[in-house]
Amino acid sequence: FIQESLEGANVADIAAILDELNMEEALYVLRLLSAEIAADILIELEEDSLLRVIREMEPSELAAFIEHMDSDDAVDILILMSFKEREEVISYLTEKEKSANILDLLRYDEDSAGGLMAKEFIKANQNWNVVQTIEEIRRQAERVEKIFSIYVVDNKQHLLGRVSLKKIILAASDTKIMDIYEPDIVSVPTHADGEEVAEIMRKYDLESIPVVNAKNRLVGRITVDDVLDLIREQSEEDIQAMTGISADVEESDSIFKISKARLPWLLIGVIGGLMGAQIIGFFEEGLSKYIALASFIPLVAATGGNVGIQSSSLVVQTLASKSVFDDTPWQRFIKGVSIALVNGVVLGIFVFLVVHFVYGFESIFGVTVGLAMFCVVLLASFMGTVTPLVLDKFGINPAIASGPFITTANDLLGLAVYFGVAMALLKL
Amino acid sequence: FIQESLEGANVADIAAILDELNMEEALYVLRLLSAEIAADILIELEEDSLLRVIREMEPSELAAFIEHMDSDDAVDILILMSFKEREEVISYLTEKEKSANILDLLRYDEDSAGGLMAKEFIKANQNWNVVQTIEEIRRQAERVEKIFSIYVVDNKQHLLGRVSLKKIILAASDTKIMDIYEPDIVSVPTHADGEEVAEIMRKYDLESIPVVNAKNRLVGRITVDDVLDLIREQSEEDIQAMTGISADVEESDSIFKISKARLPWLLIGVIGGLMGAQIIGFFEEGLSKYIALASFIPLVAATGGNVGIQSSSLVVQTLASKSVFDDTPWQRFIKGVSIALVNGVVLGIFVFLVVHFVYGFESIFGVTVGLAMFCVVLLASFMGTVTPLVLDKFGINPAIASGPFITTANDLLGLAVYFGVAMALLKL
Ligand SMILES: [Mg+2]
Ligand SMILES: [Mg+2]
Ligand SMILES: [Mg+2]
Ligand SMILES: [Mg+2]
Ligand SMILES: [Mg+2]
Ligand SMILES: [Mg+2]
Ligand SMILES: [Mg+2]
Ligand SMILES: [Mg+2]
Ligand SMILES: [Mg+2]
Ligand SMILES: [Mg+2]
Ligand SMILES: [Mg+2]
Ligand SMILES: [Mg+2]
Ligand SMILES: [Mg+2]
Repeated sequence: FIQESLEGANVADIAAILDELNMEEALYVLRLLSAEIAADILIELEEDSLLRVIREMEPSELAAFIEHMDSDDAVDILILMSFKEREEVISYLTEKEKSANILDLLRYDEDSAGGLMAKEFIKANQNWNVVQTIEEIRRQAERVEKIFSIYVVDNKQHLLGRVSLKKIILAASDTKIMDIYEPDIVSVPTHADGEEVAEIMRKYDLESIPVVNAKNRLVGRITVDDVLDLIREQSEEDIQAMTGISADVEESDSIFKISKARLPWLLIGVIGGLMGAQIIGFFEEGLSKYIALASFIPLVAATGGNVGIQSSSLVVQTLASKSVFDDTPWQRFIKGVSIALVNGVVLGIFVFLVVHFVYGFESIFGVTVGLAMFCVVLLASFMGTVTPLVLDKFGINPAIASGPFITTANDLLGLAVYFGVAMALLKL
Repeated sequence: FIQESLEGANVADIAAILDELNMEEALYVLRLLSAEIAADILIELEEDSLLRVIREMEPSELAAFIEHMDSDDAVDILILMSFKEREEVISYLTEKEKSANILDLLRYDEDSAGGLMAKEFIKANQNWNVVQTIEEIRRQAERVEKIFSIYVVDNKQHLLGRVSLKKIILAASDTKIMDIYEPDIVSVPTHADGEEVAEIMRKYDLESIPVVNAKNRLVGRITVDDVLDLIREQSEEDIQAMTGISADVEESDSIFKISKARLPWLLIGVIGGLMGAQIIGFFEEGLSKYIALASFIPLVAATGGNVGIQSSSLVVQTLASKSVFDDTPWQRFIKGVSIALVNGVVLGIFVFLVVHFVYGFESIFGVTVGLAMFCVVLLASFMGTVTPLVLDKFGINPAIASGPFITTANDLLGLAVYFGVAMALLKL
């Protein structure tokens, strides 16, 4: 009964159900179904369910499923295993070509074009005619589920262009491929960054993109479905980095798991706060003379945090869209400083006016808070702009710069600046 | 010369160049090129360049370009104009079918499935055979650039399923469509939300999805290229909402524009900070007795902010992925409270230990700061969880909840709680 009702359903839906079951139940269902459908379901499982399932399966059983997968999906599963287990599973594969493809793909970094591409696609030699090409499609029909474009190569496998299925259907059967293919196509090298590939496919409206090696030989193809998965993963990661959640968690995870993922960044914030307490303690004498200084601590700290996040998010956005910075570093520096000056002056004057005229503090005190405000905006802008650039240089996700770390650092800096200005102006 | 060198280049690249030119230069280049290529470039322009260009064009000239666009792209441009201009442009269209399609699509909300779909796609009647279907493809070849799937309908245009071009190529010419089509396909209603459509296409690995009306009649098709654009736009909007940048700005925009986009949220933060100053001023007497209380203000405020952002981002993530909340509202409430309790207890005790043993304050003071910490974590979690849900209910982008607004509110709440606890425990 389970078998019957599941065979009609979509594999993505079945995978979503299995994600909710315990491991034995999931294994039971997978074994009920045909290897082909079970393979499709496996690749749609969430990573933690997938890990639990493959840990329980025999290498030979896993190999039977992997036999039915596209090479890119097979590799996505194999990289979750230890080197030893992986070799064992591959040794059980019966198709020589499949295991050769998988071994080739295992060489690439997971988030590079090589890690995203599959070996299943249709290529046609430029000297073939339409009938020969249709013959090739027929031969590969089982292996290549979705065709999108047919890539055209010369005798040495160099990528020349593409021809659409539509053109193949509409052309006379003796038409030569070389007479109908589009030569101007976009391809990416194996080492291209996955996010860059996604942006190229978005920009040029591509459903698939060919991947070439250093000699411009066609070695694989990336399809848009895998790019959509990558985009979603990356944006979840960025948001987590920005909001200080250290592991990939969902609302449905356990209380313990969520707490554990949140605590590290909270602790860093707390330690920063405790360091801030020491900075303020250092100025305690001045503070006791001028108790009103304490009132404006949250104002200065919050503004520093807000300015820092705004600046960093704009830089992160530019980095993420991989758009070239139109201006030179020097021009960008001038621009960043100008924006900070404008905002700093506006906010500084506003704060001065409120503190002096509305709250009725003496003018020197208003100037102190207003000037501290101005300095904090300037410094926080600088930090917010530089930090993501530095992180990116070191290969760290720059989105972290918009998160608790930079906010904490800006809070401390803000406090130091605030009390520094107060010391100088109020002669404490 | 310009003409020659541009005709070979990709339209997306030309559009990127035109985005950098001034309006006269851009218009000059567009008029040099054939209407077909110019139309492709227009739809790839950024919104502000596009607005500038169409404001300068005559309605008849614009109509000549729109004539060459897919209906969805035509509508994207027409909605940028006033009702009067729009009607004028449409009156210049020569193709009756095109203007009927455009008028139909103009009815839908921009971010709904109806606003994303195009009228250009191939459909086949279930009673046709393969030859008739290929005839239809030939007839529509000019109009439908990318086919993806052929949708199968009955005589009343009800959606029945799909058949791939691959299957058409490999089938014998007298095969009936009804014998080869896939009946189990996913479609969306015209009113479906765009982000939901994107998630469905990602989940089921679709490059195009059919759109049906309330009577299950096929009315349009959404393609993955437009979905990729939507995803990018949405994620930029979310990040801007989270980081308090009020308008769609890029690093390349003018200093004035960027400053203006940033100031509103900064001002809200500043006003919050000034209100915080009043709260602290209210406790000034107690503060002067216990000056060390001031030292821990940034700690309490920062933790409140961090906890609030973490909680809200997890809720926003669940809302965005449109995944059903597995638990009932009540279970989710219990869970949220439990997580907050765990984190609150850990951080409260940690802070107590540092304040009492490391910093050497008396234990009642350590308890005050630790307990305040615990209360702030609990309250900030609650606010962070509830705010995005409330915003979403009112149709406001819930990502705003992770931004300056909630942070500011949490800062104020944190201050009030901190001094409330201090008043009670230290008997000020
Ligand atoms: Mg991979
Ligand atoms: Mg595009
Ligand atoms: Mg794939
Ligand atoms: Mg997939
Ligand atoms: Mg990233
Ligand atoms: Mg996840
Ligand atoms: Mg639209
Ligand atoms: Mg998918
Ligand atoms: Mg379109
Ligand atoms: Mg497009
Ligand atoms: Mg959204
Ligand atoms: Mg933009
Ligand atoms: Mg803060």
